[in-house]
Amino acid sequence: MGKKEKQFVAEITPMEVDFAQWYTDVILKTDLVDYSPVKGFMVIKPYGYAIWENIQQYMDKRFKDTGHKNCYFPLLIPESLLQKEAEHVEGFAPEVAWVTHGGKEELAERLCVRPTSETIICEMYSRWLKSYRDLPFLYNQWCSVVRWEKSTRPFLRTSEFLWQEGHTLHETYDEAQEETLRMLEIYKQTAEELLAMPVVTGQKSEKEKFAGAYATYTMEALMHDGKALQAGTSHNLGQHFTTAFNITYLDRDGELKNPYHTSWGVSTRLIGGLIMVHGDNRGLVLPPRVAPTQVVIVPIAAHKGGVMERTMELFSELKNSYRVELDDRENYSPGWKFNEWEMKGVPIRVEIGPKDIENGQAILFRRDTLEKETVALEDLSGRVQTLLDEIHNNMLYKAKMMRDEKTYYVNNFEEMKELMKTKPGFVKAMWCQERECEDKIKEGTGITVRCLPFEQEKLGDTCAFCEKPAHKMAYFAKAY
Amino acid sequence: MGKKEKQFVAEITPMEVDFAQWYTDVILKTDLVDYSPVKGFMVIKPYGYAIWENIQQYMDKRFKDTGHKNCYFPLLIPESLLQKEAEHVEGFAPEVAWVTHGGKEELAERLCVRPTSETIICEMYSRWLKSYRDLPFLYNQWCSVVRWEKSTRPFLRTSEFLWQEGHTLHETYDEAQEETLRMLEIYKQTAEELLAMPVVTGQKSEKEKFAGAYATYTMEALMHDGKALQAGTSHNLGQHFTTAFNITYLDRDGELKNPYHTSWGVSTRLIGGLIMVHGDNRGLVLPPRVAPTQVVIVPIAAHKGGVMERTMELFSELKNSYRVELDDRENYSPGWKFNEWEMKGVPIRVEIGPKDIENGQAILFRRDTLEKETVALEDLSGRVQTLLDEIHNNMLYKAKMMRDEKTYYVNNFEEMKELMKTKPGFVKAMWCQERECEDKIKEGTGITVRCLPFEQEKLGDTCAFCEKPAHKMAYFAKAY
Repeated sequence: MGKKEKQFVAEITPMEVDFAQWYTDVILKTDLVDYSPVKGFMVIKPYGYAIWENIQQYMDKRFKDTGHKNCYFPLLIPESLLQKEAEHVEGFAPEVAWVTHGGKEELAERLCVRPTSETIICEMYSRWLKSYRDLPFLYNQWCSVVRWEKSTRPFLRTSEFLWQEGHTLHETYDEAQEETLRMLEIYKQTAEELLAMPVVTGQKSEKEKFAGAYATYTMEALMHDGKALQAGTSHNLGQHFTTAFNITYLDRDGELKNPYHTSWGVSTRLIGGLIMVHGDNRGLVLPPRVAPTQVVIVPIAAHKGGVMERTMELFSELKNSYRVELDDRENYSPGWKFNEWEMKGVPIRVEIGPKDIENGQAILFRRDTLEKETVALEDLSGRVQTLLDEIHNNMLYKAKMMRDEKTYYVNNFEEMKELMKTKPGFVKAMWCQERECEDKIKEGTGITVRCLPFEQEKLGDTCAFCEKPAHKMAYFAKAY
Repeated sequence: MGKKEKQFVAEITPMEVDFAQWYTDVILKTDLVDYSPVKGFMVIKPYGYAIWENIQQYMDKRFKDTGHKNCYFPLLIPESLLQKEAEHVEGFAPEVAWVTHGGKEELAERLCVRPTSETIICEMYSRWLKSYRDLPFLYNQWCSVVRWEKSTRPFLRTSEFLWQEGHTLHETYDEAQEETLRMLEIYKQTAEELLAMPVVTGQKSEKEKFAGAYATYTMEALMHDGKALQAGTSHNLGQHFTTAFNITYLDRDGELKNPYHTSWGVSTRLIGGLIMVHGDNRGLVLPPRVAPTQVVIVPIAAHKGGVMERTMELFSELKNSYRVELDDRENYSPGWKFNEWEMKGVPIRVEIGPKDIENGQAILFRRDTLEKETVALEDLSGRVQTLLDEIHNNMLYKAKMMRDEKTYYVNNFEEMKELMKTKPGFVKAMWCQERECEDKIKEGTGITVRCLPFEQEKLGDTCAFCEKPAHKMAYFAKAY
């Protein structure tokens, strides 16, 4: 206990009181992120960026294992290129940032800061592709994109965000479709195996699909407040862009053809998702596989009974296998440190005091259940490994339970509207897939079709909202 | 040998004929890079990007091992922030791209696409720093920056490039100076240990230092054509920015103080450097530690005598330890493949034919010396490791020899001008360090002071150019 000891005050608004304020409190107080002087732009601080690095590392390996290579395309895109695919420009032009001057000169043509890179990449692909032998093109880039948003919230919707965008070309429609679904599956595995965040996968409605896509597939996660988060999308772009950009190749039969095309992306939005799926009123609860710090060691009465020496040994040992911090700050009490690391969501805390040394043991505290256990020092490293896996599995299980509890069936529009007011969540219902019906549902309620899930249930033959024939069940929710 | 066999024609202009054209031929024909539809902006293709990833991986580890953490700051910077440090805005304003519109709205204040991030980062640091206990701040970011260049060349000078920029704050001038030199040393080690590229390190002249710096340190490499490349810089920024941005902290003595500040960066320019230091008239010669493919296996008469089976086994074995490609394309002859991989600069080629299988051996070809050796198959993997190190060492040695051969002493301006016309290179000479003298040297000759090297030689007491008193030796060269 140092002389400058202060009382730890987390000052996090309880999520039941104000979920939006809870989110803001958590992300700012745990040093994930900060607002910047440019409205809608965030600064990702080291603790937040380290989560992104762990996500990148996992996904990049998955992309490379499936044959993709990284490259880098220009940040700025000429206006004329953006305009080549009609639906695409309509979708994106209203939300791009325009560069009009380079140094002191006005540019002959405006350049937009990329909101996504289909257009510039297709322009290059049209130069590169010659023969069927060159296919498939399997490329990805990690970068930032800019979309001029009116209402923003860090990680969830910002005018600039970090992401990866894959862009592939294929000989056949079937191959492109296979790629589209393969990448969605990798996204799903990332969500579940890395972030312990269960997702529903399926197809977007015509209204909600990507501007210029033939079909968009999505993974949707449910947040603590019952709102959905679109957490990653994969698009089968058909030949829309490859025709518009005149991308052709000489096929096996000697004919010039347009290839089939996909694109797919996930972003720093995933970080917003894991916060709102796992967090609680003490702050963050980080999934062990992406936590920047997996284990924090807090020595108690560090200067007594060889505590510091033994703690240093343990730190050296654990460091070889895990991301570990040793909190040896002298001007904070153990209690203060416990509270702070709980707020920061570190999965495992190791406590060691003089008594523990005497008994050859340590205390393990797990953030997800707030439970403690005593472990013999010689078993510590092994126990940490199994405990990290247990925490991951428990977090995924709890998140699934939460989602299932907030997933409902409805038979008509009134039921859905009532539900969304009182206990928001996912609503499953048969749906006609017609645009008019979709518009009516959204109008005034903010409820949107999240997806037509791959896992269908036959709940009836007619649309729950307009009573037209319906062949598919859809998920509905309010969404971020 | 397939039916569609074509003659391999590299069509690389010999460097003695036209060095600039040689460079352009090499980077385009080896698929490192392509021009984009936006003037001055390049596309980094997978083969080029993979080199950058290897550089990133090495450097990122070095940064983290020295206590730095990564974060991410906004792409766009308000004009008013750029203007806060007087020398800085003067240096950068003429070469930034300006965003004036977001969507359909004109912005109240112009935003520049970051040319470097001191200003936006200092703005955030002024909010974050409270106490001496918070120091040092040791942060880095990997990103792209934009500088509106009139005359560009891929990797060497482009309007957008990828880089890392470190930004640190310290309590004392000495700590900041130590950090500045520590990072320059890491840059030097990266150049020599990773890229086999020898560098001269030293301090920039007042004229050549970073806009807003107290002192700039640099590493300078010498290219095949005798021109220098500034390959990385590290700046002691003193209190220039921390004063301008009102960054203060409460010190141990209870006083509010401005911290000391550094920044340091290297970019994709390093790739241009390694091409021009190591390349030859066959194309690239890639340093083994960054080569995307370290070993290529080319089976000969693959369908005879179990060649393909044995080759596959070897491929699986080598893949565990090295970045390996198996070139089993059927429509190209072995000779064609040899030429292509030589052009692409792969350090080691393994050739295996039916005779080799009979004799339990393979042929190793090394790109740097163009020599072949025969190795028993059971010794192959071990030999590859030692050979990769030998190749690295030989490339570094050859590059040092080349640099030393092109490094001269001069006693006066006439000698230097004559040398630079006939056999350009590094020129060492005593120099007065006065701006007027520096301007005169550059005028009409394009010769610049590269640095005042840390390794000084006392060649005399007076400036070789103006005969004023001189206490330092400088390196002069024409530069990229």
